[in-house]
Amino acid sequence: MLQIVTRRAVLAAVLLAGITSAAPAQQPASDPLPSWNNGSAKRAITDFVARVTLGSGPDFVPAPERIATFDNDGTLWAEQPIYVQFAFAIDRVRALASKHPDWKRKQPFKAVIEGDYKALAAIGEKELLTIIAVTHANMTTDDFTRTVSDWIVTARHPRFNQPYTELVYQPMVELLRYLRANGFKTFIVSGGGVEFMRPWTERVYGIPPEQVVGSSGVTKFQLRPDHKTLLWKEAKVEFIDDGPGKPVGINRFIGRRPIFAFGNSDGDLQMLQWTADSSGTRFMGLVHHTDAEREWAYDRRSHVGKLDRALDEANARGWTVVDMKRDWRTVFRFEDATVGTR
Amino acid sequence: MLQIVTRRAVLAAVLLAGITSAAPAQQPASDPLPSWNNGSAKRAITDFVARVTLGSGPDFVPAPERIATFDNDGTLWAEQPIYVQFAFAIDRVRALASKHPDWKRKQPFKAVIEGDYKALAAIGEKELLTIIAVTHANMTTDDFTRTVSDWIVTARHPRFNQPYTELVYQPMVELLRYLRANGFKTFIVSGGGVEFMRPWTERVYGIPPEQVVGSSGVTKFQLRPDHKTLLWKEAKVEFIDDGPGKPVGINRFIGRRPIFAFGNSDGDLQMLQWTADSSGTRFMGLVHHTDAEREWAYDRRSHVGKLDRALDEANARGWTVVDMKRDWRTVFRFEDATVGTR
Repeated sequence: MLQIVTRRAVLAAVLLAGITSAAPAQQPASDPLPSWNNGSAKRAITDFVARVTLGSGPDFVPAPERIATFDNDGTLWAEQPIYVQFAFAIDRVRALASKHPDWKRKQPFKAVIEGDYKALAAIGEKELLTIIAVTHANMTTDDFTRTVSDWIVTARHPRFNQPYTELVYQPMVELLRYLRANGFKTFIVSGGGVEFMRPWTERVYGIPPEQVVGSSGVTKFQLRPDHKTLLWKEAKVEFIDDGPGKPVGINRFIGRRPIFAFGNSDGDLQMLQWTADSSGTRFMGLVHHTDAEREWAYDRRSHVGKLDRALDEANARGWTVVDMKRDWRTVFRFEDATVGTR
Repeated sequence: MLQIVTRRAVLAAVLLAGITSAAPAQQPASDPLPSWNNGSAKRAITDFVARVTLGSGPDFVPAPERIATFDNDGTLWAEQPIYVQFAFAIDRVRALASKHPDWKRKQPFKAVIEGDYKALAAIGEKELLTIIAVTHANMTTDDFTRTVSDWIVTARHPRFNQPYTELVYQPMVELLRYLRANGFKTFIVSGGGVEFMRPWTERVYGIPPEQVVGSSGVTKFQLRPDHKTLLWKEAKVEFIDDGPGKPVGINRFIGRRPIFAFGNSDGDLQMLQWTADSSGTRFMGLVHHTDAEREWAYDRRSHVGKLDRALDEANARGWTVVDMKRDWRTVFRFEDATVGTR
């Protein structure tokens, strides 16, 4: 249904919504965020978008500056019981084990092959780099992309028995779409490997490879005599896009400060601080995992996605904390099929 | 004037143009490349664009994969008599010299202050890094951006007495626009400093900061007690986006192989090789500086923008070599005002 309203009326409604946060949010004819329950988190998002997109308003931000950055693990998709990229590495070690019989007796490979998660949880940085070296390096970027692309459509999440790309949060997929419909450019800024994400982010999130920022290893260009070219992935970390690395990565890859940033852990704190510290209206959000039934409940003492200092700072500075249990009507798209409509 | 043509007729014309390169290019009602003389270079560009954008054709490339990368110095704007970024560094040294009286007697500063270009042309990497350290580091990214933004609107090119941003090639500005109008995403991939380019590329080329790939120094995030954040530029090179670094930079920042790449020097060779080596129709172009009157004539023995191996390879492999004198009707926008219409 087409609604014709005067520009003055829209202006008044938006200004009211902006000034008195207790005012009921404008409910558009068609809700762009149907998986979000009505509440303060959803209202904070829609109010913010209304304010920065209102051409005549005091908080207007021109479209090219509407940069929105999202953490990936735990913010856009599930990160429990282990990071998806780690699940990928484990599967790769097992697939490669037949060619390396000595791995059965050699750590950290032994723990991986036997599924000894207790031993794996305790491995140090050196062992982790050993696993990364055999699963993420000493191959071309094209071969790695192919391996990830094959894996991502076949592997299944251990708890939900769904492809990992079904473990994306439906409310966040809607939020990405909603922001883009309002002239935002959406970016992933993740501690995960950039080349692990790029093969599928466009299909799953609508975020193209060139808008994915992540950790990376060193690559080297090679030219073969027949004009064949390749980029060789070396077993050497180049950049860790986590914690204080996130503002560094944002500056290097995007070159502008975001006006909207969403994370879920202490590794996102500096990205949120960087976003918060600039003139004008800004949105800082955290996903708080509070729903052990539909997803997981964890925060201050979690090994994966620890949320402690960032939660305190969000509460102290009035950033938006999404309470998954309270704020999300749907968590995963597949719920609607298996659980039925709530 | 609106022309109504059948789809079949367009298809036939495009296929003909593609198969027999001697066939005259389709001349659209309004020429999107008016600063290009009709000839093989212009025809190679328009034929390529027609082929990859024809939805039903064998060479069709979906819009998200239409990645076009351009070198900057010597490809999009003039690089003689010295790289513009070097001119910036010289001006900064002179501006800072009053606070450093010892520089008058100390190389490489002495040569910079005295305008001893012969001495400057001979300086080594260590001296160059010394100049970069005092002009590009030990400050915040915000301060550097402000310094560049101020300089770029006030500094003048020594030969043309125009702002450096008037030294952009009008045919290339038209080409960037033409590609974008045909669904391409245009990127700069330059050996120059990424933070030197980003403050002005959007205004001058229509290329936003997040589509600029370049060399960079190390930056470190800092949080001040009052929630103030900053990124501090250290005097340490992080990444050189030149030569074999260009495919590395393209992979890291863009994450897809370009289908269209333009350079002008041996530093662009690997980017062109990387672009050439993939299935499907690809465009590789070189600007050959052949016009000493309107711009400069230089190639194989030039200190700045040396074009030697890449020219041989372009000729051998049939890449498009733009002969500036022959192929460009206009070089700089200001010519039309000062020289009159040719």
